[in-house]
Amino acid sequence: MIFPVGPGLTVVGHNEGEHVGQLLRVQHFTVSRDGFGTGEGQSLERPFGHADPAGMFAWRSATAGWFMRTEPGGTRGLDDYLTRDYDRNIGAEIMGRNKFGPQRGPWEDHEWQGWWGDRPPFHTPVFVLTHHVRPSFTLADTTFHFVDADPATVLEQAKEAAEGKDVRLGGGPTTIREFLDADLVDTLHVAVVPVELGSGVRLWESPDELLDRFDVDVVPSRSGVIHHLFWRRS
Amino acid sequence: MIFPVGPGLTVVGHNEGEHVGQLLRVQHFTVSRDGFGTGEGQSLERPFGHADPAGMFAWRSATAGWFMRTEPGGTRGLDDYLTRDYDRNIGAEIMGRNKFGPQRGPWEDHEWQGWWGDRPPFHTPVFVLTHHVRPSFTLADTTFHFVDADPATVLEQAKEAAEGKDVRLGGGPTTIREFLDADLVDTLHVAVVPVELGSGVRLWESPDELLDRFDVDVVPSRSGVIHHLFWRRS
Repeated sequence: MIFPVGPGLTVVGHNEGEHVGQLLRVQHFTVSRDGFGTGEGQSLERPFGHADPAGMFAWRSATAGWFMRTEPGGTRGLDDYLTRDYDRNIGAEIMGRNKFGPQRGPWEDHEWQGWWGDRPPFHTPVFVLTHHVRPSFTLADTTFHFVDADPATVLEQAKEAAEGKDVRLGGGPTTIREFLDADLVDTLHVAVVPVELGSGVRLWESPDELLDRFDVDVVPSRSGVIHHLFWRRS
Repeated sequence: MIFPVGPGLTVVGHNEGEHVGQLLRVQHFTVSRDGFGTGEGQSLERPFGHADPAGMFAWRSATAGWFMRTEPGGTRGLDDYLTRDYDRNIGAEIMGRNKFGPQRGPWEDHEWQGWWGDRPPFHTPVFVLTHHVRPSFTLADTTFHFVDADPATVLEQAKEAAEGKDVRLGGGPTTIREFLDADLVDTLHVAVVPVELGSGVRLWESPDELLDRFDVDVVPSRSGVIHHLFWRRS
């Protein structure tokens, strides 16, 4: 630790990013106790299939820092710290196609611009993984790019777009698995919620699967969530 | 919770600060198990008096996000989330005179510009509480102002300088007590470390003293620290 201890000792440097490469970070991804990141049967009306988003995400919507909060109030404890870190030093996002919309196969309607409204909550370039590319477009301060490439290539593009900041890996579970399998994820926060889905799209059988490569803090919250904070061993 | 569930439903708003007033936040203030924020006998050479800063602050200097880290590496678990939130949405700091320097009484040497080096780690205006005002000065992107006023007045000045962002209350313990006694603190993160100081400047006899006005999450960390995350009841 460098600590200023008097005028004779100059502070030799600060942590202003120069020592740290760009990270790929999964920020508060929520899974059920049985390991599913989303339910079965995604549709336009049910982005999470049979899973009830109100139940899955109650922990973060209760926090003051949740980026889609529309009213004052909310808690400012542990869950809030982990929620409000969402966009800290993030310069781009990578997401799977199913986080953008429920369509499968070729796009049939370019007019439809995703689930995220006219002012998407990303505020950065977003790289949507798809085998069916379409032209980029911008909504407010978010630009969506559609890319058909392997995880390492997409990550390279996203890091360039992030201009020195980190890249968020936004999900869904299949996309996170692909990047984990390619060993490209640096940090991963998974909130395990006290909900059983029984079926759906799985992130893991158990968090222990990651312990060969990651260190982890397991932190229970009074909301009933068990936070798993993974970071890659150096 | 507002969650986008289809193109027919517009996202009506986001948490971009418009619903939330400016907060006064104490960010990762460290105290000993027996409640002292600093030791006895502060001097130029020993900013924490008889307390050993290496022991008191080991928990945060181990993290990747500690703002004075000068080398790569560090942990990225719970302690890191709580450390790296330090400057998130902070537009000004208020500190007591003893966090600026060890002098008591009238300033005898205006050449001496504080403990924080040529590039102070604040990057915002800093309001130093003192009965002995002196001219403001700027080091890199930090400007120090010296003010002789009651807590409410200083907070008003700092909020104006923060231009809509929050204000950090930087300590030391006496300063935090003054703002707590004036009921001006909105959130307070205190890291209780497994160190006994026996004497020094006290923050509290017990964290329970704050429970009449604050809600709290008490979160043990594997570093041995017990994090106390307080927020004022609305």
